Amino acid sequence: MSTTSIRRSRDVPTLVAAAREGDHRAVARLVSLVENDDPALPEVAAALAVHTGSAQVIGLTGSPGVGKSTTTNELVRAIRAQGRRVGVLAVDPSSPFSGGAILGDRVRMQDHATDSGVYIRSMSSRGHLGGLAAATPQAVRVLEGAGCDVVLIETVGVGQAEVEIASLADTTLVLLAPGMGDAIQAVKAGILEIADVFVINKADRDGADATYRDIQGMIALGERGAGDWRPQVVRSVANRAEGIDDVIAAIDKHRAWLEDHGQLIRRREARAAGEVEAIALGELRARIGSLRDGEALPALAARVAAGKLDPYAAARELLDGLGK
Amino acid sequence: MSTTSIRRSRDVPTLVAAAREGDHRAVARLVSLVENDDPALPEVAAALAVHTGSAQVIGLTGSPGVGKSTTTNELVRAIRAQGRRVGVLAVDPSSPFSGGAILGDRVRMQDHATDSGVYIRSMSSRGHLGGLAAATPQAVRVLEGAGCDVVLIETVGVGQAEVEIASLADTTLVLLAPGMGDAIQAVKAGILEIADVFVINKADRDGADATYRDIQGMIALGERGAGDWRPQVVRSVANRAEGIDDVIAAIDKHRAWLEDHGQLIRRREARAAGEVEAIALGELRARIGSLRDGEALPALAARVAAGKLDPYAAARELLDGLGK
Repeated sequence: MSTTSIRRSRDVPTLVAAAREGDHRAVARLVSLVENDDPALPEVAAALAVHTGSAQVIGLTGSPGVGKSTTTNELVRAIRAQGRRVGVLAVDPSSPFSGGAILGDRVRMQDHATDSGVYIRSMSSRGHLGGLAAATPQAVRVLEGAGCDVVLIETVGVGQAEVEIASLADTTLVLLAPGMGDAIQAVKAGILEIADVFVINKADRDGADATYRDIQGMIALGERGAGDWRPQVVRSVANRAEGIDDVIAAIDKHRAWLEDHGQLIRRREARAAGEVEAIALGELRARIGSLRDGEALPALAARVAAGKLDPYAAARELLDGLGK
Repeated sequence: MSTTSIRRSRDVPTLVAAAREGDHRAVARLVSLVENDDPALPEVAAALAVHTGSAQVIGLTGSPGVGKSTTTNELVRAIRAQGRRVGVLAVDPSSPFSGGAILGDRVRMQDHATDSGVYIRSMSSRGHLGGLAAATPQAVRVLEGAGCDVVLIETVGVGQAEVEIASLADTTLVLLAPGMGDAIQAVKAGILEIADVFVINKADRDGADATYRDIQGMIALGERGAGDWRPQVVRSVANRAEGIDDVIAAIDKHRAWLEDHGQLIRRREARAAGEVEAIALGELRARIGSLRDGEALPALAARVAAGKLDPYAAARELLDGLGK
């Protein structure tokens, strides 16, 4: 199949087969279908289901300027060095752009352009009725289906988006940088609830020790119980590739804890529940929209006004028509 | 059937038969079922459908203190004098009380207590998922089914409620009183859009002429086209039973205009459409609620997490379960 036809194809079996053989364009096309809530998505999900459920999902969030892209880049390098295949989803909760159009994406693409074991893709959820919460896990499924052992989800730490991303990840990293007031912001945003690992990036800067102490103090205050995971705090200087091994070690430690405590399956079931619920809610909202715009209502209303049909029976008929 | 058993009964055929024979307690019980969005409502609506669609529905709204209850009382007296049976629904868009508990209701009940041709009932929509827009027309159906030739819907003129009530009525009366700044308020509230007849009550008070001129000027400014209904303006002193004949004449004139211009059927079909839509939306909202609280989701999520089911198929299964 030619490049152009893969890019435009909606032939699901062909796309899934190509993606599983490592065709980057097929993977990109499938993520685009996810972004746009394409009618073919259920078929895509059905074809991918048997190939999913085993990848490690890592979330990475933080305020603008803390070094998320650079850190992601170095993590990808370290994971590839272990011989594992890795996919990156850069999720922008607000941007109208997508499909690899953002600058950071293209820069990073160049770093790993010749490596067929890396997929990098930015995505938005503007076209997806279920929003970020429904779209992102479908994109994770695409990357898993394409053979990724690890999927990194990167998102800017604003509002609800980072909470949603954290709920999708096995392990969530929260990046901070010294002197940005992040520690205080973090408490405000309730970030302690979502962070499994705090990464103090740019740790060569003034104030790194103060930030470290702030975070440790915050963790001590927020500690829940003996059986709970105690968030790790590590330091890095991502643009000099320093401290990345410590980040990887903290992720591995958390992963082992999850498995030892039966939490991995619990997290994944909670994630699947959120995913199914978001799809179902999106579908119900679409039905409400069709109700308002539909043509069936006036005809039913005329029968009700004439006393030939009661309004509950009419509503049932209307909803049955939407359920198909 | 005893009084107590009628009051508590949910046996729909018995209740509907009793209501059609003029049993006030059966009518009250049916309106209570409407208020509380009882699961038996579809059955009630089905049993009533053939008996509905012919009653004249009159809406009556205005600010607190303009004399709505007194005017309603006198209109009931005038309609009864014509030999027609009349039902009154006093709709409180905000009150948590219902079931005839409000004072005005009991006072008026005494006026017509010995007249089996009058039903007076206050209602709220606190228990109704579809809100006022879905509950009120069902209560109108109950009163129609019980043999009322005219149904008066009275509501306080605040916010969205009066617009909703107006959309249910064949003819909407807006009551004003002199010196209450109502004319200006009326323009602000867009009340010109909903009034078919303006009633200047307490017309013996200072300022009645000024209010009359204000309203006439407002109507002249707002006039749309030659084919449109020009709102009538009449004066009354309801607590002395003065001007009530003029109000009745204005209602009759509007009714004749509606029939001559094919607007009666148009209004009733629009009302039925709103009613069916509100019921259907209430049902969809209920499904969203069950989705969140349901027991089916965790089981489906476990199958999705295990890769045995894709999330779209799971969502479909979830929604199919809710649609029953």
